[in-house]
Amino acid sequence: MIIDRLFDAVLEQGPVCVGLDTSVQLLPASLLSKLPPVRAVLEFNREVIDATIDACACFKVQIAHYEALGVDGLAAYRDTVAYAHEKGAIVVGDVKRGDIASTGEMYACAHLAGEFAVDMITVNPYMGYDAIRPYLPYLDEKGIFVLIRTSNPSAHDFQELTCDGQPLFLKVARAVAEWGKDHIGRCGYSAIGGVVGATGPEQLATVRAEFPSVFFLVPGYGAQGGGGKDVAPAFRDGNGAVVNASRSIIGTHRGKPDGNRRYAHYARAAAIDMRKDIDRWLGK
Amino acid sequence: MIIDRLFDAVLEQGPVCVGLDTSVQLLPASLLSKLPPVRAVLEFNREVIDATIDACACFKVQIAHYEALGVDGLAAYRDTVAYAHEKGAIVVGDVKRGDIASTGEMYACAHLAGEFAVDMITVNPYMGYDAIRPYLPYLDEKGIFVLIRTSNPSAHDFQELTCDGQPLFLKVARAVAEWGKDHIGRCGYSAIGGVVGATGPEQLATVRAEFPSVFFLVPGYGAQGGGGKDVAPAFRDGNGAVVNASRSIIGTHRGKPDGNRRYAHYARAAAIDMRKDIDRWLGK
Repeated sequence: MIIDRLFDAVLEQGPVCVGLDTSVQLLPASLLSKLPPVRAVLEFNREVIDATIDACACFKVQIAHYEALGVDGLAAYRDTVAYAHEKGAIVVGDVKRGDIASTGEMYACAHLAGEFAVDMITVNPYMGYDAIRPYLPYLDEKGIFVLIRTSNPSAHDFQELTCDGQPLFLKVARAVAEWGKDHIGRCGYSAIGGVVGATGPEQLATVRAEFPSVFFLVPGYGAQGGGGKDVAPAFRDGNGAVVNASRSIIGTHRGKPDGNRRYAHYARAAAIDMRKDIDRWLGK
Repeated sequence: MIIDRLFDAVLEQGPVCVGLDTSVQLLPASLLSKLPPVRAVLEFNREVIDATIDACACFKVQIAHYEALGVDGLAAYRDTVAYAHEKGAIVVGDVKRGDIASTGEMYACAHLAGEFAVDMITVNPYMGYDAIRPYLPYLDEKGIFVLIRTSNPSAHDFQELTCDGQPLFLKVARAVAEWGKDHIGRCGYSAIGGVVGATGPEQLATVRAEFPSVFFLVPGYGAQGGGGKDVAPAFRDGNGAVVNASRSIIGTHRGKPDGNRRYAHYARAAAIDMRKDIDRWLGK
């Protein structure tokens, strides 16, 4: 089961999820001068994967950054995922797809079985259970993270509305826990997990306490303002969550005198520092 | 402004939106026997576009069906869009993307400006205004349709929850109207439209009455059970909405004795019949 693999990865290598939101703008000039932009993205990703693979639980690849580069960009997405898989890593595809019926089945096929197949994907719940059902045939070998409470300021527009006496995101969290109850691994967590942002520590604490079987993907660390203290409430006995950071890992070479050459080193150092920061708040 | 172009297209050619949810399974054997599957998808789309372009307001291309075919499938998506544009058609990309900050900007770049650029895309509102803002720089030349009330049975899971005294979808509709108020064309509709399904005629009537400036994309006609009577409440003076159908247009050749040869003819006939069905309920 993928969720047991992820649990073990957190146990052994800590809860950092390295976000490969690799835009061309972020790449070191040294790569851009010798490779076409899309090839440079792939080369950068490979080097960052090699440098951080033993310092993180998994990688999250944000497909939007690759879609923006067109068909060639999506080939780089596919090849990044394939490279991480070759190296034995767990890969989360941050695709936020959510659709119904045959369309949902096509997304499931694309991202859990087809050319772009990753281990887990992020899913948008607005269309309800019909948008979750297409992924079920791929569980528990694969998994999903359903958006519960995102890390952006306007998450409150709808997610915090009081619906039948509870904030909407808690209704969604309850549904996620319910949908996932037949997909719980030996680790005690379900292959249907949830996204809960680091920018709402009190929401994190609430959903952690109420839904002990939901594994969390936590965005919002680093560039979005969250720190170890903010993400600590996502954990139960030091596990049950991975914390994503992208720019604050893969962008740390910028502004460094030797960043143009040692970008992978800086990414590794940032991932290790991030793990230490989180561990401290988990009392490890 | 794109919304004025769409309004004029509905005026001149009726409100049918031909859904190019072209899966390989749906293709006639005649095409599959002479072309590789992905090439056959593109060829089928071209023929259907030619056959229906004067019988519809626009085309909607469901990207999931192309993603499932990998990088080559996405090239067929791009080429389908390009072909429709060459012929002067308006193209809606049914991508349901919704994300924030730099990620949202990447989606906007990908689908409104980059290689995959269409005229309007569908957007998921769960993350709030932050997921809408990245598209604003592309308005009013381009437009978006925000999911309000979808056509699937479990849309009620969250969209019908009572939030502060109103169903969630009405809260979303109100936000859509508000976000769009600075983007209203001479036709009286905004470049920020909404998706409201044909399977909830009473919801359609409610949002139509309350939000006169929101142009609707209405899914759920045909294969999903909606008919002319169900979609009629989406309109105001015979305009302000396009009604999508996919399988009940592009799949009508199946089971016909000459369907293998005359699939484009059947698609055209189905689009014309659909327009007549809707026109009847609009009193035209």
